[in-house]
Amino acid sequence: MIADLPFTFTALQDAYATGTTPVEVIEEVFRRIARVDDPGIFIHLLAKEEVLDAARALGAPDPSRPLWGIPFAIKDNIDAGGKPTTAACPAYEYIPEEDAFVVARLKAAGALLVGKTNLDQFATGLVGVRSPYQPPLNSVDPAIVPGGSSSGSAVAVGHGIVSFSLGTDTAGSGRVPAMLNNIVGLKPTLGALSARGVVPACRTLDTISIFALTVSDAYAAYQSAAGFDPQDAYSREIRVTPLGAMPPKLKMGVPDKASREFFGDTVQEACFEETVETLKALGLEVREIDFTPFFDVARMLYEGAWVAERHTVIGELMAKRPEDVHPTTRIVVGKALELSASDAFRGIYRLKELKRLTDAALAGLDLLCVPTAPTFYSVEDLVADPIGPNSRNGTYTNFVNLLDMSGLAVAVSPRSDGRPGNVTLLAGMGQDGLLASVGAQLEQACAHELGATGWDLPEAPALAAPVVQADELALAVCGAHLSGMALNHQLTSRGARFLETARTSDSYRLYALAGGPPSRPGLVRGKPGEGGEIEVEIWAVPLAEVGSFLAGIPAPLGLGTLILSDGRTVQGFQCESAGIEGAQDITSLQSWRNFMASGTARSA
Amino acid sequence: MIADLPFTFTALQDAYATGTTPVEVIEEVFRRIARVDDPGIFIHLLAKEEVLDAARALGAPDPSRPLWGIPFAIKDNIDAGGKPTTAACPAYEYIPEEDAFVVARLKAAGALLVGKTNLDQFATGLVGVRSPYQPPLNSVDPAIVPGGSSSGSAVAVGHGIVSFSLGTDTAGSGRVPAMLNNIVGLKPTLGALSARGVVPACRTLDTISIFALTVSDAYAAYQSAAGFDPQDAYSREIRVTPLGAMPPKLKMGVPDKASREFFGDTVQEACFEETVETLKALGLEVREIDFTPFFDVARMLYEGAWVAERHTVIGELMAKRPEDVHPTTRIVVGKALELSASDAFRGIYRLKELKRLTDAALAGLDLLCVPTAPTFYSVEDLVADPIGPNSRNGTYTNFVNLLDMSGLAVAVSPRSDGRPGNVTLLAGMGQDGLLASVGAQLEQACAHELGATGWDLPEAPALAAPVVQADELALAVCGAHLSGMALNHQLTSRGARFLETARTSDSYRLYALAGGPPSRPGLVRGKPGEGGEIEVEIWAVPLAEVGSFLAGIPAPLGLGTLILSDGRTVQGFQCESAGIEGAQDITSLQSWRNFMASGTARSA
Repeated sequence: MIADLPFTFTALQDAYATGTTPVEVIEEVFRRIARVDDPGIFIHLLAKEEVLDAARALGAPDPSRPLWGIPFAIKDNIDAGGKPTTAACPAYEYIPEEDAFVVARLKAAGALLVGKTNLDQFATGLVGVRSPYQPPLNSVDPAIVPGGSSSGSAVAVGHGIVSFSLGTDTAGSGRVPAMLNNIVGLKPTLGALSARGVVPACRTLDTISIFALTVSDAYAAYQSAAGFDPQDAYSREIRVTPLGAMPPKLKMGVPDKASREFFGDTVQEACFEETVETLKALGLEVREIDFTPFFDVARMLYEGAWVAERHTVIGELMAKRPEDVHPTTRIVVGKALELSASDAFRGIYRLKELKRLTDAALAGLDLLCVPTAPTFYSVEDLVADPIGPNSRNGTYTNFVNLLDMSGLAVAVSPRSDGRPGNVTLLAGMGQDGLLASVGAQLEQACAHELGATGWDLPEAPALAAPVVQADELALAVCGAHLSGMALNHQLTSRGARFLETARTSDSYRLYALAGGPPSRPGLVRGKPGEGGEIEVEIWAVPLAEVGSFLAGIPAPLGLGTLILSDGRTVQGFQCESAGIEGAQDITSLQSWRNFMASGTARSA
Repeated sequence: MIADLPFTFTALQDAYATGTTPVEVIEEVFRRIARVDDPGIFIHLLAKEEVLDAARALGAPDPSRPLWGIPFAIKDNIDAGGKPTTAACPAYEYIPEEDAFVVARLKAAGALLVGKTNLDQFATGLVGVRSPYQPPLNSVDPAIVPGGSSSGSAVAVGHGIVSFSLGTDTAGSGRVPAMLNNIVGLKPTLGALSARGVVPACRTLDTISIFALTVSDAYAAYQSAAGFDPQDAYSREIRVTPLGAMPPKLKMGVPDKASREFFGDTVQEACFEETVETLKALGLEVREIDFTPFFDVARMLYEGAWVAERHTVIGELMAKRPEDVHPTTRIVVGKALELSASDAFRGIYRLKELKRLTDAALAGLDLLCVPTAPTFYSVEDLVADPIGPNSRNGTYTNFVNLLDMSGLAVAVSPRSDGRPGNVTLLAGMGQDGLLASVGAQLEQACAHELGATGWDLPEAPALAAPVVQADELALAVCGAHLSGMALNHQLTSRGARFLETARTSDSYRLYALAGGPPSRPGLVRGKPGEGGEIEVEIWAVPLAEVGSFLAGIPAPLGLGTLILSDGRTVQGFQCESAGIEGAQDITSLQSWRNFMASGTARSA
């Protein structure tokens, strides 16, 4: 029965493989819209016939189009050619000729656009009720706010009307609504998704974001959407890796007890702690850090100069026709009028200084885990105070784009009161793939339904075998570059991905070299059968990064070809024979990790 | 006679090596100050006894202190502990407790601080006459302006009073005065020299700069001054390479005829063209480019929002005591009062867009060569119009820090009318070493006296290692990758550049490996003295290309560290010991080239 068909990518693709057609799926999309019956979700719904035409035009299933037949919606601050863009401000409406760069890419990948969704006007807000159009109802619980600014996009996915949707995220608009609707929100690295054809909020801090029911769905849409756009000055060349297995021994920071903030919501705090325990059980090493500098950065977004960026977009409209701008938006953006260019630069200086503190806090960590928002607010709360709850919603989101981090809001097990559980994983720029690999593991470890649909999480996606891409080199490491060890960051900071643990052929002898600290290993090939099978980790290193990595390798170590126990060969660390003078033969321990744990190491 | 002793580093170091003492040099510094008799140079000259004490405290010559006994001056917007800092505004004066970070480093390297020099107030200007203190006279011709804002620092070097001096450079204050005083001005990559203890002009665009009589002197001072400072939020980790030979086949852009601008000064234009011809003769490949986008960026510095950065520094003083600020400075910085935070962000957006155009213009080029300034202005010109000539002086300098480039103003052969010849070399961030390697060659090729001293350029300095750019890896090859041999195209097709022929230390044995064709060499390190000095070629390989190169190297070969006959180390080909089974030891032939020519090779 198509009425019961989950709109996850895998369920849809399975259905297509067994005879369902995109036309049937689009018919069901419109039946679901009617069933949900919330006129607040879409500002502009496409005519059903038009979407059906697009579905028919897809022709036969096409494996070269990874989003073939997948229905999606976009926030109404993103252009669809020939359809009005309003940014939830009727007076601002215009009709663009072309699709936004990202929308065009998604359509080219086979996705079917259904409509344009409601939002906090001009993407200013985290609540979803700052719209002159009737705001959508939260998909999980109509008493709580839908979340914003990408309200309609999150609600549409929460109800399973579409498989994924585009939001935008400057302060947290791609993450907070994900939590409130029990779904996934992927906030890509700035510049990974072109901003061409998007109404700016803060041009230096904006990104398109993606909502979906599962991490792998969000990441698949991201893979199709991402690409350098020379016509967007803020577009960057960001490498997009396939969704892979989670690297072992990741180090994850969480806010410490003294600095964390839940505004009294102990249920939310308990849910967060439980999720951190789940992540520990998955093998992540957790370190508590003082979150004060991150909160200091967060406050700069609305209390500092960046609000002037919003003013560059709507200042003229606000001046000429103030009544056409939502009263709350007017208050928030109106603050820019009091800010001078000197204030803007003072803000930029302050951020640069705070970044030294956050960099120090992040040193040695692979990622952070934070609550997506500290608590839940009801629609009534926002009627009583349109600004305070909104600000508090951004506690764990506002700093992220200012610090150029990647982010992923992941739905986890529900709170003890039944409300959605959700945490956000954060890492440095370009680490979107790392976050997805962790997020996909995390959601599998958490029992929860998808959005408000009642559907179960599908089985873990078959992760592509750890293959290297054309622009990567598989590199075997055997010492301090192993996961969790002292020099592993030289791999992760270069965007390298963990592929697998393997063993060398039995031709190798492993030595602890003379000198140090730190103690260094030397792997020397001899005759077959005269050595041991030594443990190595194989990492996929971006080809462009190998040079700087090699430049930092001191004698007697180098990179050459290793022979593995299964006969494969891989480039990896090796040691000159001349370098083992005075070294300790530790072949019998079979791995550097065992040696370091054995207590015989001179020093770590 | 010490009175005739050139204060170039080499001349001073030679004098020290033959018995001259720092005390005698400092006595001579003060005699020269008296002889030049220009009270406009120093705002605060240190007491002679104090400098003599510092000279005595140096003790015996110390090879670990590369600036041992070298006298220098600093612009009076840079702190010297216990001495007043005025930024040429008496009302702004304060007495810092500590030396600026860079001053402390220079002193630690053995340099002797003599005094603090005059400047365009708050480093706002390119002329040197915007100071309430009596402006210094140009060292070459008192009728022309001394140049600014680092006027006193440039004039002090132009007269040979000190060996080098510190300026600061936001718009061109470290380059324009170098031209006007016939000396060298090194404008480092932003963040390479800490800004701690410097009065900001535009914090996002400021750098300390260095004036000296020769390129190698300026670069030596830079090497001692550079270093990451975690306490300066704008400090960056910039690789500092030794001054090396100029790489061959560099591609250099120059402004094309249609876009270049000399404001009618045909003598200056002829001088520029002649210098470009000299650079061609040195082997640089010259390409003319449209300079319009660079000029568009240049205009943003004073016409755009960045002037508000200056206002963050002196706005309060200007508001409270306007009469204490130089009238021209007040006019220039006063513009900030009309600029909103929105204007600031609009400027940032515009710069980002222009950067796409300048990036395109720079694609495929290693460096640019531009006139340092388009023409010369007299003091009278500035009396008639305090702003216009100043702006025109920045034609070829204002865009440089906005585009995050490194720059070096080099004194070349004089113009046909006898005025100083000078061009500026520009490259991307971190390319300071490349610019110095080109500049050092260029000045050697140009007959000119140093500053206004009458001293001749010393002989070319002994260069250390071949220079590798920040985005390259020096790689030694010993077999089929040698020039003219079968696999050399694997280097050239990756944009690698030949640097030099060298020999390994005598620890290496060279083998013709079993197997083939083609015949392959294996270089294996053993004990010192037990091998031969094997010929290698060193190539500069773009870092981004090393990965694909390594991916194609089969066992038993790999890349590791080679030790050269002169003790240098370089990454290069090496062979696993396990791989030499059945190989032919050809160490005695000393090179793969000899082996291939010997007729004993199985096959090429």
